[in-house]
Amino acid sequence: MQTKKIFLPESEIPRQWYNVAADMPTPMEPPLHPGTGQPVGPEDLAPIFPMPLIEQEVSQERFIDIPDEVLEQYLIWRPSPLYRAYGLEKFLDTPAKIYFKNEGVSPAGSHKPNTAIAQAYYNKISGTKRIITETGAGQWGSALSYCCALFGLECKVYMVKVSYQQKPYRRMMMETWGGTCVASPSTETEAGRKILEQNPDSPGSLGIAISEAVEMAVQDDEAKYALGSVLNHVMLHQTVNGLECQKQMKIAGDYPDIIIGCAGGGSNFAGLCFPYVRDKVNGKDIDIIAVEPTACPTMTRGPFAYDFGDNNQMTPLLPMHTLGHTFVPEGIHAGGLRYHGMAPLISQLILDNIIRPVAIAQLETFEAGITFAKTEGFISAPETTHAIAEVIRQAIQAKEEAKEKVILFNWSGHGLVDMAAYDAYLSGKLADHELAQEEIQRALDDIAPLPKPKQYTG
Amino acid sequence: MQTKKIFLPESEIPRQWYNVAADMPTPMEPPLHPGTGQPVGPEDLAPIFPMPLIEQEVSQERFIDIPDEVLEQYLIWRPSPLYRAYGLEKFLDTPAKIYFKNEGVSPAGSHKPNTAIAQAYYNKISGTKRIITETGAGQWGSALSYCCALFGLECKVYMVKVSYQQKPYRRMMMETWGGTCVASPSTETEAGRKILEQNPDSPGSLGIAISEAVEMAVQDDEAKYALGSVLNHVMLHQTVNGLECQKQMKIAGDYPDIIIGCAGGGSNFAGLCFPYVRDKVNGKDIDIIAVEPTACPTMTRGPFAYDFGDNNQMTPLLPMHTLGHTFVPEGIHAGGLRYHGMAPLISQLILDNIIRPVAIAQLETFEAGITFAKTEGFISAPETTHAIAEVIRQAIQAKEEAKEKVILFNWSGHGLVDMAAYDAYLSGKLADHELAQEEIQRALDDIAPLPKPKQYTG
Repeated sequence: MQTKKIFLPESEIPRQWYNVAADMPTPMEPPLHPGTGQPVGPEDLAPIFPMPLIEQEVSQERFIDIPDEVLEQYLIWRPSPLYRAYGLEKFLDTPAKIYFKNEGVSPAGSHKPNTAIAQAYYNKISGTKRIITETGAGQWGSALSYCCALFGLECKVYMVKVSYQQKPYRRMMMETWGGTCVASPSTETEAGRKILEQNPDSPGSLGIAISEAVEMAVQDDEAKYALGSVLNHVMLHQTVNGLECQKQMKIAGDYPDIIIGCAGGGSNFAGLCFPYVRDKVNGKDIDIIAVEPTACPTMTRGPFAYDFGDNNQMTPLLPMHTLGHTFVPEGIHAGGLRYHGMAPLISQLILDNIIRPVAIAQLETFEAGITFAKTEGFISAPETTHAIAEVIRQAIQAKEEAKEKVILFNWSGHGLVDMAAYDAYLSGKLADHELAQEEIQRALDDIAPLPKPKQYTG
Repeated sequence: MQTKKIFLPESEIPRQWYNVAADMPTPMEPPLHPGTGQPVGPEDLAPIFPMPLIEQEVSQERFIDIPDEVLEQYLIWRPSPLYRAYGLEKFLDTPAKIYFKNEGVSPAGSHKPNTAIAQAYYNKISGTKRIITETGAGQWGSALSYCCALFGLECKVYMVKVSYQQKPYRRMMMETWGGTCVASPSTETEAGRKILEQNPDSPGSLGIAISEAVEMAVQDDEAKYALGSVLNHVMLHQTVNGLECQKQMKIAGDYPDIIIGCAGGGSNFAGLCFPYVRDKVNGKDIDIIAVEPTACPTMTRGPFAYDFGDNNQMTPLLPMHTLGHTFVPEGIHAGGLRYHGMAPLISQLILDNIIRPVAIAQLETFEAGITFAKTEGFISAPETTHAIAEVIRQAIQAKEEAKEKVILFNWSGHGLVDMAAYDAYLSGKLADHELAQEEIQRALDDIAPLPKPKQYTG
């Protein structure tokens, strides 16, 4: 029999995270204070994050130790298995070898707990009693709720109202782990009440939910805020996956020619590819591809500029690819890919031609998800189907070129709590969305008054 | 760090299933033809099952080879990991060591594909074009739909109407894998139309759905019928799990004093414990506990008698613990445990004092499920929480007795598609159900006219 899955023994789990900041070809430009326009210091972030996470956010150390208490909890599902997709290869009749890292085996069903456990732990040892966050489709909120339960922390989640109503199972998961989930905009915060006064039927947005969570965290001495993507320390925690994968690929006896992941804020993608970015900076020839939806083409069509992380302009200004902080994408089902910005580290690596972004429309991604389910068994999260669609494109191209390419991708999560999306696709209710050029212009107008980074591309 | 999970290398996956029929202390009494009352022969079963499965159903061979094509598909998630539940042990402050086999890692999220893959394979090589089955809560229907996709078979599932409406995600899973799912009773069959004429609002039952599936399979030369539990060949296929577990427990350096599983038709329970039943028959001292709901106490309160598998009296008469083929249990959320009968092999082993049944009420099981989610991370299927509730009872008893017992249980599946059940529990909407004594009397009346097995206990 052919080897289908490669497991690492628990004793081989990485003991350090990899910090790509140490190997960036171009130094990162700093985040700026929203009021002063000056670089943000640790003291500016102290009201919302515990100090160990702030230190990681600005660290230039190449490797950072993973605490034993975090490792112990990682072992609930880590090291996650590396799979060879024989079924998909056979169906596509491709000479390419396709590997995928299965991050759906965590209790929350996605990669999100890789950072949620670390964030819960550092908050716990820093004296935090409760963590307040926002969530869009619910993957992050459920992961953080799970990890807070493990460390005896309270967890409060502001969930974008339209998702709160459409995806009740995610709220129920949060509550099962002991968390509290509130539809946003809510009447609990100034930010929420302001929106509701203007529009009582507001469906909410990630930007509004971030504003509510930050507002509550700042007011509460026992609380901190947490973010599930975009920031440097979140990318850092996710690299445990890519470091595992490098060991597993060695066991498999292959090295990837192409690495693919979907990218919303960028964390699952960074987790797999950043250790390989180090290899590429050191001379390896790898095509590293970040896939986003055409409905929210942050990387492929948004400028590189300073912008806010939320639409209420409460967060620091980050240098990133952005569609503008007031951007509201079409209601595609890949909720995790509907964010206006992109992680600064990934944005910079795109500018430096280390990472190559592509955008794929919704129908092709669901078709890819169905193909994957029928050939490899697993039902993918709508976000993850974006990666699969690009894998299929690359595998077909390898066939046309008759090349035995090695393709590796991150299977970032299962779709069992997102079945309504498949139902909509199968009943012909979904459409493709291409962002109009006026929207790009609106993004440029949105960020026009803000400071410009050196490499501004608008 | 302590070892959390024990993986077997793929090369160590069992190459044979174990057939407990070879080691039964008391020989099994045969199934009887519903018309003649005579023992059923292979030719009676040929219209609904392919011959290789009929041969396995009656085989007395101790070990039966697993075909390579089945092994290859098992590798998608097998060998499944054996976990040590340190988090739960610590929470309970028990000297007991608690192990669980994680069968939730399959694409369908439960143990069901262990037999679905085998049944799809044997149907494929026997020339079947489509498989027709029924499903209650949907675990079986989704598993079979998945496995039919792998072998290029059509799959049609009659799903009990109340579940079809309450659990739409299961239907969507079946459709994503290419299967067809119809609410039962339907207008497609005589059996369904008859019920609908009597009661257009019938919520359906497993018994009715079985009748519809069998009726359709018998009429269609290219189709066969499939059952996800109860029958000998289904138990056989599930033993791949227990055989793996025996190897893993050896690596762990422990041998179970207590083995626990939930039992509806009995297949996940049999899969883990039958290889240990062999050890017990050969002298090992193990307490093997099957857990059922008090709302459907087939094993603890139902007589051992000949009864039909469906309420339309179409199936052979099986010697088993039963609450009568017309029994309709309360609408508890553990849909997989709402069956009136129990696998004949398990029923006989209960009579022989090899397996000990217990019944637990619903609220205790959900409390156990919440405790497990907060300590071990994973959210359990409502069926599986029955096993956890008994594990907690045993771990507390071990503490009271200050004994370092080794407890092993089957974590038969995750509950991510059953979150509404947790929501109902957390909102205080659930109640316990104790079966009234009149219902037991009704069961006795129900089966009174049927032939009696030698060990009849009514």
